[in-house]
Amino acid sequence: MTGTAEGLLARVALTWLAEPGTWSVHRLVDQLGPVAALDLLLAGEAPDRALRSAVAARSAMGEARVVAEQALARTERLGARVVTPDDEEWPARVADLRGLLLSGAARRVDLETAPPLCFWVRGAWPLGEALARSVAVVGARAATPYGTHVATELGYGLADRGWTVVSGGAFGIDSAAHRGALTAGGLTVAVLACGLDRPYPMGNAALFDRIAETGLLVSEWMPGAEPLRPRFLIRNRVIAAATVGTVLVEAAARSGATQTLNRAIGVGRPGMVVPGPVTSAMSVGAHEVLRDHDKARLVTGTAHVLEEVGRIGYDLAPPARAPERPRDRLDDEAAQVLEALLRRKAIGLERVAARAGVDLRTAMRKLSMLEELAMVVRRDDGYALAPPPEHGTEAGRPPAAAGPGPSTAPPT
Amino acid sequence: MTGTAEGLLARVALTWLAEPGTWSVHRLVDQLGPVAALDLLLAGEAPDRALRSAVAARSAMGEARVVAEQALARTERLGARVVTPDDEEWPARVADLRGLLLSGAARRVDLETAPPLCFWVRGAWPLGEALARSVAVVGARAATPYGTHVATELGYGLADRGWTVVSGGAFGIDSAAHRGALTAGGLTVAVLACGLDRPYPMGNAALFDRIAETGLLVSEWMPGAEPLRPRFLIRNRVIAAATVGTVLVEAAARSGATQTLNRAIGVGRPGMVVPGPVTSAMSVGAHEVLRDHDKARLVTGTAHVLEEVGRIGYDLAPPARAPERPRDRLDDEAAQVLEALLRRKAIGLERVAARAGVDLRTAMRKLSMLEELAMVVRRDDGYALAPPPEHGTEAGRPPAAAGPGPSTAPPT
Repeated sequence: MTGTAEGLLARVALTWLAEPGTWSVHRLVDQLGPVAALDLLLAGEAPDRALRSAVAARSAMGEARVVAEQALARTERLGARVVTPDDEEWPARVADLRGLLLSGAARRVDLETAPPLCFWVRGAWPLGEALARSVAVVGARAATPYGTHVATELGYGLADRGWTVVSGGAFGIDSAAHRGALTAGGLTVAVLACGLDRPYPMGNAALFDRIAETGLLVSEWMPGAEPLRPRFLIRNRVIAAATVGTVLVEAAARSGATQTLNRAIGVGRPGMVVPGPVTSAMSVGAHEVLRDHDKARLVTGTAHVLEEVGRIGYDLAPPARAPERPRDRLDDEAAQVLEALLRRKAIGLERVAARAGVDLRTAMRKLSMLEELAMVVRRDDGYALAPPPEHGTEAGRPPAAAGPGPSTAPPT
Repeated sequence: MTGTAEGLLARVALTWLAEPGTWSVHRLVDQLGPVAALDLLLAGEAPDRALRSAVAARSAMGEARVVAEQALARTERLGARVVTPDDEEWPARVADLRGLLLSGAARRVDLETAPPLCFWVRGAWPLGEALARSVAVVGARAATPYGTHVATELGYGLADRGWTVVSGGAFGIDSAAHRGALTAGGLTVAVLACGLDRPYPMGNAALFDRIAETGLLVSEWMPGAEPLRPRFLIRNRVIAAATVGTVLVEAAARSGATQTLNRAIGVGRPGMVVPGPVTSAMSVGAHEVLRDHDKARLVTGTAHVLEEVGRIGYDLAPPARAPERPRDRLDDEAAQVLEALLRRKAIGLERVAARAGVDLRTAMRKLSMLEELAMVVRRDDGYALAPPPEHGTEAGRPPAAAGPGPSTAPPT
C-alpha cells in the first residue's frame, strides 16, 4: 500500500467501481495495493463474475480515474477531505470488520461487509480521534415520543461524559441522539449512506450543518452519490465497527437498526438495547434482539451504557472533554435556547423563543445570561452562537497538530 | 409421617408455634414425623435457641393442640379444608423448596424457605390438580395502567390456554392477573399471607369471593392469622415453587415481587420478566432482574410465556380445561357483563351496566344473550351468575374422585 496521491485516487476510483464493503475488492487491495488492484479491475480481470460485470457497467459510464479526479476536486470545493488507512486520522477500529462472521446471511448486501477503502469527511476533528471514545445510538425512523426522549437523553448523557455520539443522521432515533449530543455541547458524528454534498434526508439539512460545524459528517460514498436503499445497510457495518459499542433504542421487527446491533456484536462490541413497553410496535425489534441474542445487553440509560463500554477499559481513558464547562451546568430552558441558535446566522428574539419552545420573556432572560457566559453573541439582526474558543480551551483536547482544520483540502 | 388426624393436628399446631418455612421445624418433621416433632418442641427441646423461644412465647398464650383443634373447627365452619403432604391433592412441586439455595440472604425471613407443612384451602378444585399447569404472575401493588393492562392480558391469555394463573391477591398486578383469568373463565389461585377468613387486602373482598367460587384461596396460615409484613415474603416462596414458572410484570427496585422471581429461578423454574418503559419507576425492578440474572428471560406476552413453561414439557400435557366452552367465545362486552355479575347475589340492571362499563342498552342485550346461554339467571331483584354446572360438564375435567367438594370438612 502506498500513501501517495496515486493510491488515494485509486481508492476513490475503486469505491466508484464497486460498492463499499465488497470482499473481493478488499482482498485485491490487501494483496496488490489500491493502484495495482484498480489496474487489474480495469483490465477486466476481476476475480469473480459479479465484480467483472459491475466494473464493466461503470466503465461504460466513464473512465474510473477521471471520475475519481473529478470527485476529489468536488470534495475540495465542498470543504471536505478523503481519509484513507494511510492517514493518521484513519479510525483503526474498522479493521475489525475483517473478522465479521455473518452466519445465515441471505442477501448479497448482508454478506459484503469488508472494511472501508476510504472515508469522505466534513468537519474539523480528526476522524480517528473523534471515534476513539464513541458510542453508536441507533433506532427507528418512525420513533415514538418515548424513543425520541430516551435517545435524546442518551445522546446528551454520553456527550456530557465525553463520549462521541455516532448515528446515521436519519429521522427519529438518529436525529434525537445527534441533537442530544449537540445540546450537551458534545461531539457527534453522522455516518451517511450518500455523498456529503447531498446529505439525506433533506429535512435534516439544518441538523447536518450543525453537526459539521462542531462534529463530523462521514461517508464511504463520493460527493454526488445517491442514498440508494442497500447503501444504508452497507453503511451500518461502519457505525457498528467504528464505535466502542452500539445502543439500539427503538426498532420494529427485523429493522435496519437491529442489523447494526447484530453487526456490532459480530465484531465483538457491546450490543446494548433499551427496552420499551411491550404494547409498542416500535419496541418489538428491540425485545426480539434481547430474547434472541445472548450477548445483547439490556440498558436503561447512560450509566448502564458507560458500564458496558467501560468494561473494555475505555472508561480509564482520559475523558475527551472536560465536564466542567459552563455549558454543562445550564438549566433546561437555557440549554433549549442555546440549542435554538446557529453559529453562522443570527436569529431574531421571537424566532429563538419559538425554536426553543419557551416564552419571549424566558428567551430574553436566558439569552442575556448566555451572553454573559460568552456563549451567545448579540448582533444587529439577532442572536447567534459565540464563535468556538481557541483549540484546547473549551474542548479540553485540541485536535492533533497534524489534523486538518475545517475546509481543508483533502490530504494527498 | 402418618396421615392420621393426630398428624394433621400436629402440623397445624407446628404452624402456629413457628412461622411456616422454618428449616429447623421442617427437619424435625422430616426425621420424626409431625407428632413426635411437636412433642419434642412442646417439651422445650427445640434444637436451636430461636425456635425454643418462639415455642415458649406461643405456649404462654395457649396450649398448641387446643389452638390447633379450635383452628380445625373454625376451618370447617369456613367451608375450607387443610391439605397436608399425606393428601392426594398435595402439590408435589413445593418439595423443590428443599433445594432452594439462597446465597447472600441477610434477613432471617430470606433464609427460612423450607417447604410448607400444610395448606388451608378454600374452593372446589383439588389443590395439586389446580397447580399442575400453573403460572405465577406477580408484580407491584402500585402498578401503572401499563402494568395493569399487561397483567390482565397475561392472566386472560394464560387462562384461555388452560393454564391456572397464580398470584398473591394484592392490589395492582396481582389483582389484574386474577381478574384476567376470571374474565377468560379460567382457573385462578390466590396464595395469601394470612387466614382465609380475613383475606388481605379488604378492598379485594369481592375478588376473593369470585376466586373462591371458581378457583382457590390458599394459605399456610390458620384462620384468624394476621397479614404481618414478613409473611408476604415467606408466602412468596410458595408462589414461586408451586407453579411451573413465574412472570414478573412491574416492580420497583428491590421489591417483594422481584424476590418471588428470584426464588422461582432458585428452585429451577423459568423466571420471566416483562420489560417496560425505562422512564417508569415501576419497571426499574424488572429491568434490574433482567440485567442481573442470566437466567431471567424477557417475555412480552402470553406466547412467550407458553414457550418458556412449555420448554419443560408441560405444553404436551393435556390442557387443564377444554377451550371450547361457550364462555371462551364471548365478545368483550358480554365478557365484561359476565364479570360484573356475582353468583350469590343478584344485581340490578343499572348496577350491572355501571360495573361492566357499558351502556344500559348493551347491558340488557348481553344479559339476555347470556341468559340464553344459561350463564346468567334473572331473579326478582336483578341478575346473577348461573350456578356452576355439574362437575365434568363445564370445566371439561372433573375434580379427582377423591377430591373434596366445596365446603367440605378438612380431610383427616
